[in-house]
Amino acid sequence: MTVGLKTEEVTELALHRSTLNENVLKAEYAVRGKLYQAAVERAESGKKVIYTNVGNPHALGQKPITFMRQVLALVNYPALMEQPELASHFPKDVVERAKTYIANTPGGTGAYQDSRGNAYVRQEVADFLTERDGYPAKFEDIYLTDGASQGISLCLFLAIRGRSDGILTPVPQYPLYSASIELRNGTKCSYYLDEESGWGLSIAELERSVKEARSNGVLPRAIVIINPGNPTGQCLTVNNMEAIVRFCVREKIAILADEVYQTNVYPEGSKFVSFLKVVQDMGQEAKNCQLISFHTVSKGVVGECGRRGGFFHVHNIPEGVVEQMYKVMSTSLSANVEGMLVVGMMVNPPKVGDESYELYFKETNGILESLKRRAKMIYDAFSSMRGISCNPVEGALYCYPNVKIPAEAVEAAKKKDIAPDVLYCLELLDATGICTIPGSGFHQKEGTFHLRTTILPPEDEFEQIVKDFMDFHEGFLSKYNAAEDF
Amino acid sequence: MTVGLKTEEVTELALHRSTLNENVLKAEYAVRGKLYQAAVERAESGKKVIYTNVGNPHALGQKPITFMRQVLALVNYPALMEQPELASHFPKDVVERAKTYIANTPGGTGAYQDSRGNAYVRQEVADFLTERDGYPAKFEDIYLTDGASQGISLCLFLAIRGRSDGILTPVPQYPLYSASIELRNGTKCSYYLDEESGWGLSIAELERSVKEARSNGVLPRAIVIINPGNPTGQCLTVNNMEAIVRFCVREKIAILADEVYQTNVYPEGSKFVSFLKVVQDMGQEAKNCQLISFHTVSKGVVGECGRRGGFFHVHNIPEGVVEQMYKVMSTSLSANVEGMLVVGMMVNPPKVGDESYELYFKETNGILESLKRRAKMIYDAFSSMRGISCNPVEGALYCYPNVKIPAEAVEAAKKKDIAPDVLYCLELLDATGICTIPGSGFHQKEGTFHLRTTILPPEDEFEQIVKDFMDFHEGFLSKYNAAEDF
Repeated sequence: MTVGLKTEEVTELALHRSTLNENVLKAEYAVRGKLYQAAVERAESGKKVIYTNVGNPHALGQKPITFMRQVLALVNYPALMEQPELASHFPKDVVERAKTYIANTPGGTGAYQDSRGNAYVRQEVADFLTERDGYPAKFEDIYLTDGASQGISLCLFLAIRGRSDGILTPVPQYPLYSASIELRNGTKCSYYLDEESGWGLSIAELERSVKEARSNGVLPRAIVIINPGNPTGQCLTVNNMEAIVRFCVREKIAILADEVYQTNVYPEGSKFVSFLKVVQDMGQEAKNCQLISFHTVSKGVVGECGRRGGFFHVHNIPEGVVEQMYKVMSTSLSANVEGMLVVGMMVNPPKVGDESYELYFKETNGILESLKRRAKMIYDAFSSMRGISCNPVEGALYCYPNVKIPAEAVEAAKKKDIAPDVLYCLELLDATGICTIPGSGFHQKEGTFHLRTTILPPEDEFEQIVKDFMDFHEGFLSKYNAAEDF
Repeated sequence: MTVGLKTEEVTELALHRSTLNENVLKAEYAVRGKLYQAAVERAESGKKVIYTNVGNPHALGQKPITFMRQVLALVNYPALMEQPELASHFPKDVVERAKTYIANTPGGTGAYQDSRGNAYVRQEVADFLTERDGYPAKFEDIYLTDGASQGISLCLFLAIRGRSDGILTPVPQYPLYSASIELRNGTKCSYYLDEESGWGLSIAELERSVKEARSNGVLPRAIVIINPGNPTGQCLTVNNMEAIVRFCVREKIAILADEVYQTNVYPEGSKFVSFLKVVQDMGQEAKNCQLISFHTVSKGVVGECGRRGGFFHVHNIPEGVVEQMYKVMSTSLSANVEGMLVVGMMVNPPKVGDESYELYFKETNGILESLKRRAKMIYDAFSSMRGISCNPVEGALYCYPNVKIPAEAVEAAKKKDIAPDVLYCLELLDATGICTIPGSGFHQKEGTFHLRTTILPPEDEFEQIVKDFMDFHEGFLSKYNAAEDF
């Protein structure tokens, strides 16, 4: 049996740890790392765990959108539409949508689709982009994937030829990027977001990073920009985006725009602006800007993480590259078909006048308004804690406070051979059941410590969670003898 | 806009064809290659295409299993169970199964599960393996994936460190393997199946291949065995499997057993035997055999390709390796959840006495019996054609006949800079709409030509398809002046 077999017993075997691909061994992935494993053990021992380590809304009680689930039920089991007494249970637009999807999904949800995705849904996405940005988008430029991660991973794979190819990546960053770059044998070129200016992205810092890369013999090929930010929650201004585009054109760097949180924008009156719009608004000046944009059904107000639905859009990517994308996607034949349909419903929801519209609006607006309140509550809570500072959560699903760690705790962590923020998060988990991720998993400026928590716990438990967190924090400061004015 | 941008216009861009990862450029993937693209163009121009290029049963009219679709409808939209007049439409065991899955899927189908897969379904798979092989299987050794391809790709990625790592791969082979090995920068070490002995797998040939690899400085790390064979349709004997295991233990080569066609075994009285059973039956002699076995919901009688459900089972794989698998799987967070549930239903279908059983049996048995008839029909047809020879289709979903190509056709192909079997398949497509894949995509012994067709077209269209094929074939032989006794 496999379980329990230790490395020292396996010298007679072909596959053991020391004979694996070294890029695999080097890659780190914090979202499912030490903290998550400790949390799983805790849960298995029967204790409560509040999983704020990953943006997994349904796991924390967010309800699915009824319209989507009704359509899925019908496309999977169309017999429900054939008997009037059953069909009458479903709103008319749900039945129509299900019929439209069935008619436009060759072989149904059980059949591989074209490796680029179902053509009807790709057109729905194109229509959505056209309406969102005010420029005509083409379905041929859209690829449907198993979640956004698959597309990101594919693009990095194509772009990276080896260690001397660099990908500019923010610090802090979502660990998918550092892990994928490592797995693909590329070089991560960090650019630091400026915590003091609300996690601002400065062109001077990009220039510094590119210069450093080049002086190390590394060619920066692409830049990852997460907007709204993960884990930082900031939203870029249009001015800033224009400056980034100019920089990328000048330096011949392609933009990978992770815009999976585009619906999660919270400040009153603010609106998400895509890189695709900015680039097109800039016209001639940005004509050499290469841009690949990613979106998903896992976040926003849909939160259908388990569907693994996503898409990417290519702008100014030559046919020779697109052909290769198609070929690599072909080796896994097809993304899952329901994920594609959920993408379609996300970008083409019920409209005013449709029978489902009222409920759809109530559900999605309810989720968005509640997320806004929770974003504020969590910011207020962290801002009030001794030794913790925090930027407002403008977007996405996370808060990334800066936590000062007392010297004695730093010492204690050192003895245990773990990072100080790992110690903090482990003790938080142990005391309260709240599972967060230490900043070291997202990378951070040397000497600073952070943690990432989602804003996803249910609103009615929020007060208690915040109270537990505060109690723990005060206890932690006392335990490690933080100064009064810490 | 992207569409239409040619390579010569893009020297100002970071990403163009000549700056891509060279392993991507080198990889070939025939299942969605030249023939498929020609077929898509044909379909777009309004002409009929019979897609026998890929094992995609529902696309050719195979019906989904009602039990599975009913359960999926309920888990996606549980409100159907809350109203008695709706719930009464569903068999009792369907409702029970849906409730069980809902209770055991944290957050529901819309939530990421553990990256190794939902624990309840992993246990269902373990129970299935235990019953199938007569040895206790553990859920910890089972990983749920987006189709079998994802697991195969993962294992190759871990095992391959670079060009000097070799993977033994059959010729002919399923092109996922050659493509994945190329994408991972490894070396494919071919071993030839013997067409004359019914695509037999001889140990002498494995020894030859290993010797050749070593003399080229390549270390064979793992062997891919597809049983039942794809595209060849042969089933290995237990004696042969034991000899393979002995060989692999002796040579320190891990076995990757692609057993996705385990339900598709056709000769009267024959039964699939897994490598996992053979290895365990061999006891002490095979104690150092490392085995990873793959299965899917896409084939068999289920044919739910669009779900992307699959699993792999690790045997004798040390913890240090398993941890790395888990880490890499974590970077894509979770396979899609419905794919997992369909895996569960495939391995744990309705039992005698369950309300759904009768229909389930009728549907699955009907599909299997029809596949058996079609396997025989296609074999009979090819065997009767001048210049074509063919082994019986013992298993899987394909027939891989050997097609002699007249000298003038070989010449014509040369002029068009395509392989002779590509010419044959393109002309077949053009004349009949039948989309096959030329043998060059699966690799073949030099100087021989083949094509792969699935046995999936609907039974009532089979006669016509076979007739069209025969007519085309005779026409092709005349056109290129084949000798009378060809």
